[in-house]
Amino acid sequence: MTKIDLLLEQLLKQDVATAVISDPVTINYLTGFANDPHERYMFLFLMAGKEPLLFLPALDLARAKASLSFPVVGYQDAENPWDKLKAILPQPTSTKVAVEFDHLNVTRFKGLESVFTAAFVNLTPLIQQMRLIKSADEINKMLIAGEWADKAVQIGFDAISLDKTETDIIALIEFELKKQGISKMSFDTMVLTGTNAANPHGIPGTNRLESNALLLFDLGVETLGYTSDMTRTVALGQPDSFKKEIYHLCLEAQLAAQDMIKPGVTASEVDAAARQIIEKAGYGDYFNHRLGHGLGMDVHEFPSIMAGNDIEIQEGMCFSVEPGIYIPGKVGVRIEDCGYVTKTGFETFTKTPKDLLYFEG
Amino acid sequence: MTKIDLLLEQLLKQDVATAVISDPVTINYLTGFANDPHERYMFLFLMAGKEPLLFLPALDLARAKASLSFPVVGYQDAENPWDKLKAILPQPTSTKVAVEFDHLNVTRFKGLESVFTAAFVNLTPLIQQMRLIKSADEINKMLIAGEWADKAVQIGFDAISLDKTETDIIALIEFELKKQGISKMSFDTMVLTGTNAANPHGIPGTNRLESNALLLFDLGVETLGYTSDMTRTVALGQPDSFKKEIYHLCLEAQLAAQDMIKPGVTASEVDAAARQIIEKAGYGDYFNHRLGHGLGMDVHEFPSIMAGNDIEIQEGMCFSVEPGIYIPGKVGVRIEDCGYVTKTGFETFTKTPKDLLYFEG
Repeated sequence: MTKIDLLLEQLLKQDVATAVISDPVTINYLTGFANDPHERYMFLFLMAGKEPLLFLPALDLARAKASLSFPVVGYQDAENPWDKLKAILPQPTSTKVAVEFDHLNVTRFKGLESVFTAAFVNLTPLIQQMRLIKSADEINKMLIAGEWADKAVQIGFDAISLDKTETDIIALIEFELKKQGISKMSFDTMVLTGTNAANPHGIPGTNRLESNALLLFDLGVETLGYTSDMTRTVALGQPDSFKKEIYHLCLEAQLAAQDMIKPGVTASEVDAAARQIIEKAGYGDYFNHRLGHGLGMDVHEFPSIMAGNDIEIQEGMCFSVEPGIYIPGKVGVRIEDCGYVTKTGFETFTKTPKDLLYFEG
Repeated sequence: MTKIDLLLEQLLKQDVATAVISDPVTINYLTGFANDPHERYMFLFLMAGKEPLLFLPALDLARAKASLSFPVVGYQDAENPWDKLKAILPQPTSTKVAVEFDHLNVTRFKGLESVFTAAFVNLTPLIQQMRLIKSADEINKMLIAGEWADKAVQIGFDAISLDKTETDIIALIEFELKKQGISKMSFDTMVLTGTNAANPHGIPGTNRLESNALLLFDLGVETLGYTSDMTRTVALGQPDSFKKEIYHLCLEAQLAAQDMIKPGVTASEVDAAARQIIEKAGYGDYFNHRLGHGLGMDVHEFPSIMAGNDIEIQEGMCFSVEPGIYIPGKVGVRIEDCGYVTKTGFETFTKTPKDLLYFEG
């Protein structure tokens, strides 16, 4: 049974016979066709008992036709897409149409309301459920993306030098990966030195690496349609004992959370395992974000690993474990691995060691 | 008068006393505060007669407070943002609340509906109008972004060699710029060789540059909050006369469109000026996209320069002029400059020559 058939089967149980997919990543997940229409429109129409239909910019038509076995319709920039859709689409056979509330903007929502006479219901939760549990094939791709992240951070380690800036190191990491055929990072690579790392959303700049300080790398690679995401914090020169203490506290929290992950525990329990350790040491206020996030085809996806989220951890779920301690003006540490849940535990996609590594400038 | 005051003045004329800005780029435009909340929530609340209020992830609170002089409120990952907003925001003093229909997704729209008892109207057109006409300061920043694009394409030209791949050249361009402090391209840089360039949305790969063919560069740089975007197509070795003919036809179309831009003509007339030349030569079907797009803080913004868009060109508007001819399996050419409209004409941000340039492999 294809993913599309599975989705339609689920929807029919909720009396929905038509669904409209607007998120290009979901379209890729369901069909294997990867395309970024930028600000133009792309919709996948799923209709019970009928073939799917992909509607997209005329620019992308040839590539879509070559890759898909169901009907594809293009529209020109100067055409009104809603008029064209009204002309080609049948009215839904159910009173409800499902659309992705977390993706669709209001303009497009109103456009679809002009096409279909129906009540619109939220498709996002069902898509999140489908994408939540990764198949062996997906996990395999994420292991490959993780290997690339390990390579990337190693390139960064090898480049550490006091005469280099944060952006020098970033440029070098991405250059070496691009030469090896990696066309996309999962997000803007972050290399943050010393006090700049004390900001959880610090912005890398042309400042040189600080000596006797910690240095933070946060990066990920997108390959085969899947993402990786990792953070390592290392020592440059001889950081003082306070900085080292904060590092070891963060590592203890990260390992404690990783160790307790298995099917049946909840997301909030995993978060608490790390947070309690940091709180008990008196630094709870400096760990001001959730412990982790799901990842897969998107680098941030459902679910959040955080307090208040009582979703049960299940085999095949993939997410990050990334406690951080950020003491403004003093020190910043984050340690992050993403991994997948097995029958009995948690296996990380990234393998770079986590003992505090020391580098000379 | 600040941009926020101007916006509220316009809204009051439409009986709207409260506006919610959700697009981070619009927030940056109105306040000077640049922040990417990723999938978390960030809203700027504008209320007639009251101070603005920025609501954003707790992670970004310190940076926001340091940069803004009005109230800023953060929320933690584990907090319900809608409950928090209900507790801190006053009900609107008008029956209408304006939100950005082109940006806000349905989930967030419904969240705001739970906060405000009001009718929601579309703010996007007013924001588009404000951002449409660029100030001298904005044009100056775009000239700088254009200079960087010229430098970037020159780095690419200097790297041309038959033993290099498309992605080698892309890696090199971005590496050199990053070393010089450019942290962001406007979009994924494209270098497309030979028949790969014949696809208007071709995807660069690890294939080597083709000899006796055309080579296309499409790139842009983001700096000081503003973007550039340019395309050049050059000759590698000795392309046959057909390829050269297509190049010169595309150039003729591009120059014809640029030459007729001045205040008072319409966007569709500018598009037609280029399109007619390509149609008359018999290649109209191979120019399958609009002539251009607005740009500024976003690389693609309002308006589209295309058939059916009768918006009048005004002084200070900034947009691209980028005809393309893509003959599958044979040849692809696109030539693009962005520029700004003056009292009497059009000045480009990018200055790289457009006579067909020849390179040896």
